[in-house]
Amino acid sequence: MAIKIGILGYGNLGRGVECAIRQNPDTELAAVFTRRAPASLKIQTQSAKVASVDEIQNWTDKIDVLIVCGGSATDLPKQSPKYAKLFNLIDSFDTHAKIPEHFANVDKSAKEGGKVAIISVGWDPGMFSLNRLYANAILTEGKDYTFWGKGVSQGHSDAIRRVEGVQDGKQYTIPVDSALKAVRAGENPELTTRQKHTRECFVVLKEGADAAKVEKEIKNMPNYFSDYDTTVHFISQEELDKNHSGIPHGGIVLRSGSTNGGKNKHIIEYSLKLDSNPEFTSCVLLAYARAAYRLSKEGASGCKTVFDIAPAYLSAKSGEELRATML
Amino acid sequence: MAIKIGILGYGNLGRGVECAIRQNPDTELAAVFTRRAPASLKIQTQSAKVASVDEIQNWTDKIDVLIVCGGSATDLPKQSPKYAKLFNLIDSFDTHAKIPEHFANVDKSAKEGGKVAIISVGWDPGMFSLNRLYANAILTEGKDYTFWGKGVSQGHSDAIRRVEGVQDGKQYTIPVDSALKAVRAGENPELTTRQKHTRECFVVLKEGADAAKVEKEIKNMPNYFSDYDTTVHFISQEELDKNHSGIPHGGIVLRSGSTNGGKNKHIIEYSLKLDSNPEFTSCVLLAYARAAYRLSKEGASGCKTVFDIAPAYLSAKSGEELRATML
Repeated sequence: MAIKIGILGYGNLGRGVECAIRQNPDTELAAVFTRRAPASLKIQTQSAKVASVDEIQNWTDKIDVLIVCGGSATDLPKQSPKYAKLFNLIDSFDTHAKIPEHFANVDKSAKEGGKVAIISVGWDPGMFSLNRLYANAILTEGKDYTFWGKGVSQGHSDAIRRVEGVQDGKQYTIPVDSALKAVRAGENPELTTRQKHTRECFVVLKEGADAAKVEKEIKNMPNYFSDYDTTVHFISQEELDKNHSGIPHGGIVLRSGSTNGGKNKHIIEYSLKLDSNPEFTSCVLLAYARAAYRLSKEGASGCKTVFDIAPAYLSAKSGEELRATML
Repeated sequence: MAIKIGILGYGNLGRGVECAIRQNPDTELAAVFTRRAPASLKIQTQSAKVASVDEIQNWTDKIDVLIVCGGSATDLPKQSPKYAKLFNLIDSFDTHAKIPEHFANVDKSAKEGGKVAIISVGWDPGMFSLNRLYANAILTEGKDYTFWGKGVSQGHSDAIRRVEGVQDGKQYTIPVDSALKAVRAGENPELTTRQKHTRECFVVLKEGADAAKVEKEIKNMPNYFSDYDTTVHFISQEELDKNHSGIPHGGIVLRSGSTNGGKNKHIIEYSLKLDSNPEFTSCVLLAYARAAYRLSKEGASGCKTVFDIAPAYLSAKSGEELRATML
């Protein structure tokens, strides 16, 4: 029998999970929960229901795992602790500094309900974190590097759009090639923020807006752009829609380490190149939903992260099959 | 108190484990077991004993984990099942086709003794296997590629040295750059053996040997070279010793997959670039020794592989530290 998945929130991520379920025949979409009027939502899966989040507590015996697809700023800190006592639960909480607090809140709730929750699932945090851990456990002497991009940063794109005179905009984060090369060569460079990434902005101006003023304001924006070499291109809305409507992303995690008193150097590198950031993230969420379901069946409860999940739990294949085909 | 490690077999791998222990203060080397005369063995660790393998059963309460550093052809199939009932045990069994059989033998023995054994640890099988599993669980529609090198293949170097007229030799396995590029570009090529790797041989001839004959014999050797584009360079023993005495290796695991009915493509890539194959492998073995020790303390027993071990068990850091610093 397929694992019954519930999706809470039907934005890019929720739609991505629905899409991932179609690629995983051991899972099925039971329901999508929304804060909007359910009738206003069109989903792709005919067999699944759309329900108001206010009725979610009626679904506890019809859903094996709830995947919470809200944002980390305001949604997940409330939703995950609230629902982890009712459902096995997956979220993609990505505010790195607040993970310990979020973990504690979700853990308390999940233990209360006897459920399994896995938080901060995705690629960073998620697959990148895993690779940092594995690489650090193996090469205990060394240096870590994470590069992001080339890809669209939603936060930086939002920041551009808040600038006066801007009609629309997209921002790409781009790793600096020379920095990456130095790391790959085992040079262990010390890299400042500016030396690791550049930021490229594509901006559509409102009619009559002052391009020079907009460019200056973007480039000097603290936290977002002032610490980076930023390029601003002004283009038409048509051009933006045509060439920049995707949500690609990716990045690279490296550990440059040594053995035998520094005599021998080793580089471990993990990279992702993604046409669709939310669709890939959704695939990771669904694999961990499978793990949460299995762990729950084994009697586990409480909050976990990707660090706590044995890899075999993620695959639909049996241990025997995995050993015979992938080891 | 440090985890007490025993090493069985003091070749490249055994020496590598000793070296890794010095980088991991939560572990200590208790003893090296050898089939040679113990007095003939010089080890680096003053506090550790050298003992005959015939006395290994006297060490069951003085060693937490035994790392078996023998070869996969004849040593490990006997040693691991034999000692898994006496010790928590790690091996690097790498004959992919025989893993299911080896697993069954070790599992029986480990369960009998109430011990934890983790087999086929290293980078392939090992870290590469893990990356195949993670990538397949995430991108369920896609294609896998593994490239090896640039690096020294011990098996192929041995094969060269068995050719009549050859005094010494080293063989490098090299991934074909154009094949790698096609995979990275998401072209999902079908690649033959010859299209994925080339083989480069550095050969020292015995006096009076016929170079043309040796080259022909190498290039036509079935299984080892006949399916590859092979280059043979004849050099002096001095040159070989000076430029080819290292044991570098590495490789790349890729999965090229798609989501949303093939609309969006994604590439997951994991690569290793290693100055010393045995020293890196040893670091992986030691991290899994830590995991075996902890699992055993929790009451687990039986044979496991890297697929069954939650990543957090590999790190000396606590779950709390890991979440705060690496997630």
